[in-house]
Amino acid sequence: MNKDATEIVLRPIGSIRTPFASASGTPIQSRYAYGAEGTVELFAEYEPGLRDIAGFDRLWLIYLFDRASQAQLVVRPYLDTAEHGVFATRSPARPNKIGLSSVRLLRVEGTRLYVADVDMLDGSPLVDIKPCIPEFDYLAARRIGWFEGRLAKGAVADSRFER
Amino acid sequence: MNKDATEIVLRPIGSIRTPFASASGTPIQSRYAYGAEGTVELFAEYEPGLRDIAGFDRLWLIYLFDRASQAQLVVRPYLDTAEHGVFATRSPARPNKIGLSSVRLLRVEGTRLYVADVDMLDGSPLVDIKPCIPEFDYLAARRIGWFEGRLAKGAVADSRFER
Repeated sequence: MNKDATEIVLRPIGSIRTPFASASGTPIQSRYAYGAEGTVELFAEYEPGLRDIAGFDRLWLIYLFDRASQAQLVVRPYLDTAEHGVFATRSPARPNKIGLSSVRLLRVEGTRLYVADVDMLDGSPLVDIKPCIPEFDYLAARRIGWFEGRLAKGAVADSRFER
Repeated sequence: MNKDATEIVLRPIGSIRTPFASASGTPIQSRYAYGAEGTVELFAEYEPGLRDIAGFDRLWLIYLFDRASQAQLVVRPYLDTAEHGVFATRSPARPNKIGLSSVRLLRVEGTRLYVADVDMLDGSPLVDIKPCIPEFDYLAARRIGWFEGRLAKGAVADSRFER
């Protein structure tokens, strides 16, 4: 593929409502959100796409870090004092500001999904919803690089990657 | 957020090379790729973002289903004979054609990542790379909706969602 290939244009399919208005104090991962609840508000035209979604415990949400600062290729992430390449981190200040989080589905009412374990900012534009299938998604991954030994240290974000 | 809010523009950061030239016969998930090997070819300008990535066993690749057919909100997926809402499936014919796969990192040479368990088409535009952290990503998900009992049935795609 050519480096100057066509841009990829996405259209939000809805937005995500959460209790978190700014990065400071927001859990850095679903894992640290301790059940924080929110809703996924899908635009009405996409409602047929939700058929049978109530059967799943967890969903992957793919969304935009719309308030993240400009991309940095080397970042000092929340969980470490050292710098790492951005692709070795989950920092929002990425070349394409796409976020990936797994949320727990509580119930569905029309185009509204009630979810828990939300770790994104309120109003984040939603790009996709996929069912979480452990058989597909939870493949053995023992080596976790610089995260090793740092997972218990911190659980909330600060403003360092905010615009 | 307004429904007519700004489009989201992404730029490919590289491309993914795999043995799979067309959907027919391509494994439908990393889980069914049985070690199929490929490479992630990052554009040179992003190389600093790879620092420390060699420490991870698995990476999430976020990429574009660039050869998928037009979005369908209700689809008949590879693993079932019944129709389901597209957001309850992993079908590529989605409103935003974003793919998510976990690959096993074999080694890094400059801007080239040698990976295994690839399930995407050769040349798929790469949008993001994130480290896979089981502590963050592998949260309990027992109910898997219509996938229940269908996981062993099929492992390869066909042309139904191809353009």
